Amino acid sequence: MQIENLLTDENTEKAAWEALEKSILYYQGRPIGTVAAYDESVEALNYDQCFIRDFVSSALIFLAKGRTDIVRNFLEETLKLQPKERQLDAYKPGRGLIPASFKVVLDNGEEYLEADFGEHAIARVTPVDSCLWWIILLRAYVVATKDFSIAYQPEFQNGIRLIMEICLANRFDMYPTLLVPDGACMIDRRMGIYGHPLEIQVLFYTALRASRELLICKGNQDIVAAIDNRLPLLCAHIRQHYWIDINRLNAIYRFKSEEYGKAAVNLFNIYVDSIPYYELDKWLSRKGGYLAGNVGPSQLDTRFFALGNLMAIISDLATEEQSQAIMNLIDERWDDLVGDMPMKICFPALEHEEYRIVTGCDPKNIPWSYHNAGSWPVLMWMLTAAAIKTGKVHLARKAIEIAEARIGEDEWPEYYDGKKGRLIGKQARKYQTWTIAGFLLAKELINDSSHLPLVSFDKLPPELVSRACEFEIGSVDPHSS
Amino acid sequence: MQIENLLTDENTEKAAWEALEKSILYYQGRPIGTVAAYDESVEALNYDQCFIRDFVSSALIFLAKGRTDIVRNFLEETLKLQPKERQLDAYKPGRGLIPASFKVVLDNGEEYLEADFGEHAIARVTPVDSCLWWIILLRAYVVATKDFSIAYQPEFQNGIRLIMEICLANRFDMYPTLLVPDGACMIDRRMGIYGHPLEIQVLFYTALRASRELLICKGNQDIVAAIDNRLPLLCAHIRQHYWIDINRLNAIYRFKSEEYGKAAVNLFNIYVDSIPYYELDKWLSRKGGYLAGNVGPSQLDTRFFALGNLMAIISDLATEEQSQAIMNLIDERWDDLVGDMPMKICFPALEHEEYRIVTGCDPKNIPWSYHNAGSWPVLMWMLTAAAIKTGKVHLARKAIEIAEARIGEDEWPEYYDGKKGRLIGKQARKYQTWTIAGFLLAKELINDSSHLPLVSFDKLPPELVSRACEFEIGSVDPHSS
Repeated sequence: MQIENLLTDENTEKAAWEALEKSILYYQGRPIGTVAAYDESVEALNYDQCFIRDFVSSALIFLAKGRTDIVRNFLEETLKLQPKERQLDAYKPGRGLIPASFKVVLDNGEEYLEADFGEHAIARVTPVDSCLWWIILLRAYVVATKDFSIAYQPEFQNGIRLIMEICLANRFDMYPTLLVPDGACMIDRRMGIYGHPLEIQVLFYTALRASRELLICKGNQDIVAAIDNRLPLLCAHIRQHYWIDINRLNAIYRFKSEEYGKAAVNLFNIYVDSIPYYELDKWLSRKGGYLAGNVGPSQLDTRFFALGNLMAIISDLATEEQSQAIMNLIDERWDDLVGDMPMKICFPALEHEEYRIVTGCDPKNIPWSYHNAGSWPVLMWMLTAAAIKTGKVHLARKAIEIAEARIGEDEWPEYYDGKKGRLIGKQARKYQTWTIAGFLLAKELINDSSHLPLVSFDKLPPELVSRACEFEIGSVDPHSS
Repeated sequence: MQIENLLTDENTEKAAWEALEKSILYYQGRPIGTVAAYDESVEALNYDQCFIRDFVSSALIFLAKGRTDIVRNFLEETLKLQPKERQLDAYKPGRGLIPASFKVVLDNGEEYLEADFGEHAIARVTPVDSCLWWIILLRAYVVATKDFSIAYQPEFQNGIRLIMEICLANRFDMYPTLLVPDGACMIDRRMGIYGHPLEIQVLFYTALRASRELLICKGNQDIVAAIDNRLPLLCAHIRQHYWIDINRLNAIYRFKSEEYGKAAVNLFNIYVDSIPYYELDKWLSRKGGYLAGNVGPSQLDTRFFALGNLMAIISDLATEEQSQAIMNLIDERWDDLVGDMPMKICFPALEHEEYRIVTGCDPKNIPWSYHNAGSWPVLMWMLTAAAIKTGKVHLARKAIEIAEARIGEDEWPEYYDGKKGRLIGKQARKYQTWTIAGFLLAKELINDSSHLPLVSFDKLPPELVSRACEFEIGSVDPHSS
C-alpha cells in the first residue's frame, strides 16, 4: 500500500470517529446511545432516535476501545424501558419486550426517554430482535469488562428472565424456532420473512447462549432448564432443515411430496416447482453452502441472507464445516454477495411479480434496493468477525479495502443499491451511524482479533454450566466484580 | 315443490343419516366421534381419523337431534388428550393444545387413542383452530343440554384455562389478534394465510366469548380479566381494520404511504399497487361488504374467505350492518360465491404467478380447486346459520336446494372444483363426513331455527357477566345441573 493510500485511510478512520462522536446521544448529562443518523442535510424523521439494533455496532466498537460507560448507561436505561408487568391492554407492549428505539424528549425543562415498541413505526412492525440484541450486548459488555456484577444485579436478572419468558412461552408451534410476523428484524418491512426467518432464529440462539452464561441458576431453574432443553434442539433444527449445499439440493430435488406420517422425508412438504433448482445448480459453488432464509409449511426460501448466515458462524450455530462452506460461498460468489460495497443484505432480489406479491409493492424495496438485495456496510463487521472465526481473514481485509476506497467520500450512506452496490441508496441517509460504527468495528477486529469473543461463542458444551450457577439471585454485590 | 322432488329430498336426507351413522367412531364400546370419510373405494390414508374441526358439524347435528352422549364422550376423551404439563421438548405439543385429530389404535387387544398434533400431518402444520373449536363445541353442548355441570368440572375448567393461557400468553405482537403460521386452520396448507388470518381471529373471538360464559371466575380472575380486556379490543380491531366495502375501499385507495408516528392513517402502510382496486370496484356490490382475509405490515388480503365471514356473523363479531352487508354480497355475487355448490371456501382463486409464489406450487391447490377457491358443502350450515341470524332465510333455502339436487347422487364429496363448483373435487373423498353432517345441519337449522343458539352469540354485553361467576372451582357437583 502506498503512503498516499495509507494517509487517505487514516483520514477516513479519523473522519469516522469524528462522525461517531457527533452521533452520541446524551441523557441527563450522560452518554446513553447513538442516534441512527446525523445527516444535517435532511429532516430527522425518526433518525434522531437510538435504535437498539443499530446501537449494537456502536456499542461493540466503544467496548473494544474501552469506552464501556456509554454501553453500561445504554443497558441500564433501556432496561428501565422494558415493561415489567403483564399488560392486559393488547395494544400495549407485552412484559419483557425491549423497544425498537427510544429518544430523549424535553418536557417542561425535564428530559425523559420516550420508547417506541412499534406503535410509531411505519406499518407497526413488532421489533422481535431488540430484546435478543439487548441480551447479546449485555453479554458483550460482561466479556469486555470481565465484570459479571452488572448482569448479576436483580434488575438485570429479572430483565433477562422476562425476555426469556416471552421467547420460551407456551405456544401453538411445535418447532424449536420462534414464530414471528413479517419484518420483525433488521428487514423491518414486508419481505416474505414471516414465520421462521433465519435472522430471528440465529439471534434467538445467540441470545439463549448469552442468557445461559448470565443467568443465576438458583431461582431461575425453570428458565435455565428450558434454555438447556431448547439450545440443542434449535441448533440441530437449523443445521438440518435450513442447510443448503449441492448435496442437500440434490436430496430436495428428488423429494416426494404429500407424504403423510412420521416417516416423511420431505418434512415440510416442499414442492419441486417452488425451488429455483436450475439457478441454484449454477450458483451454488462446489464447496459452498448456506443457511436458507426461511422454512415453513411448503416453504423453503432459498434466498441468501447475510446477517443470519454470518451470525450463525459467529455464534457457533453453524457447524465448523457449514461455517467454512458459507465463507467459501461468499468467496466464490464475491461479485454477487460483496461486489463494490460489502455486503448484500440478501441475494438475489425479489423481482417482477414476486416483488409485487411478496413485498406488497413496497416502493422502497424495489429490486436491488434497500432491503431487497441492497448493500449494507454495517454488515462488514459481521463479515469480518465470521472471517476471523473461520480463519479467512483475507476475505475481510479485501472487503474493508473495497469499502474504504469510497465510503467516507460517499459520506457513510445507510445502504447502497444496484447489483454490484455502486449506487448510493435511493433514500439512504448520509452519516448513518451503524455504517460508520460497522466500518470502525471491522477495522478494529482485523487489527486486533482478541475482540472477537465480544460476540463469538465456542461450541455448545455437552453439559451446559453457567458461571452463575453457584449464586442465588440477589446474593451478588453489584459493586464488586 | 313437487311430490317427486319431495321424495328425492327425503331419500337424500335418509341416505345422509345412514352415511353419518356409518362414520361414527367407537372407543371401548362408546361412540366418541366420526371419522373424516367413510369411502370404501379408496385407501384410508388419514381419513380414518376423527378431526376435531370436522367433527364439529357432526356434533352440532347430533346435539340438535338430542344425541348428546356422543358429543359428551368426544369432549371428555379429547380433553384427556390435551397436554397438561409444560413441555420442555420443543417438538412435543405445548400445554393446552387440542390435537388436530385422533384415531383408535388396537395394541395387544387393548384400544387406545392416538392423537396427532401436526407431527404426522403433511407439512407439519400446527392446528391452532382445534382448541378454539373445542371450546365452541363445549359451549354448544352446554346450550343444548342446559347442563352447565360438565363445564364446571375441575378437569374442564382446567382444560379451558389451559387453552386460554396459550391464546392469551405474553407475546411480541402488539395487536389483539392471534399470530399464527400459514395453514393453521381449515385451510391447512400454505395459502398466504400466515400472520393474522381472519378465520383464526373469528374463532378466537368466538372461543373467548364461549370461555367467558363457561369459566368459573373465582380462581380464574386473571384469565377472566384478560378475556374481558381482549374481547372489546379484538372486536373493534376486526370491525375496523378488516372491513372492506366501497366506502372503505375509497379511503384505502387514497391512502398515503410511509407515514411515521401515532397519527398515521394508513396504519399498516398498505401500498396502493398491492390492492386489486379496479377489480374490487366492479365486484363489490353497492350494499355489500366483507371482512378481509388477512391484515399485516403492508398486507391487506382482499380475498373473501367464507368461514371467517360467516362465523363473524354468527358469533356477533361483525356489527349488525356489517352482517347485513356480508349477506348482501353473497346474494349479489351468488354466482361467484355459491354457484352450483354452496359454497366457495374463498374467492377469487390465486392464479398464475400468485398461485406459484403464495402456495409454493401446491398441486392440490391449483386455481379453483380444493382450498384455492374450491366449493365446500360443509360451509352450508354456516351459511344457513348466518342467513337465519340476519333474517335472510331465503338465501339459505336456495343454497340447500342447489346442493340437494346433486350432493347425494355425487356421493357426498369433500369438495368441488371449478369457478361454479360443477366439478367433483379432483382428489375429493366421497362420503366425507362433514359434507354429510353440514347438509343435515343446514336442513335442521332451516326447519327449526331454535337450534341457532347452539353456535350463535348475542351482542357483547357492556358488562360481561359469566353465569359461573358466583362459583368457586371444584365447588360444583358435576352430577347436578
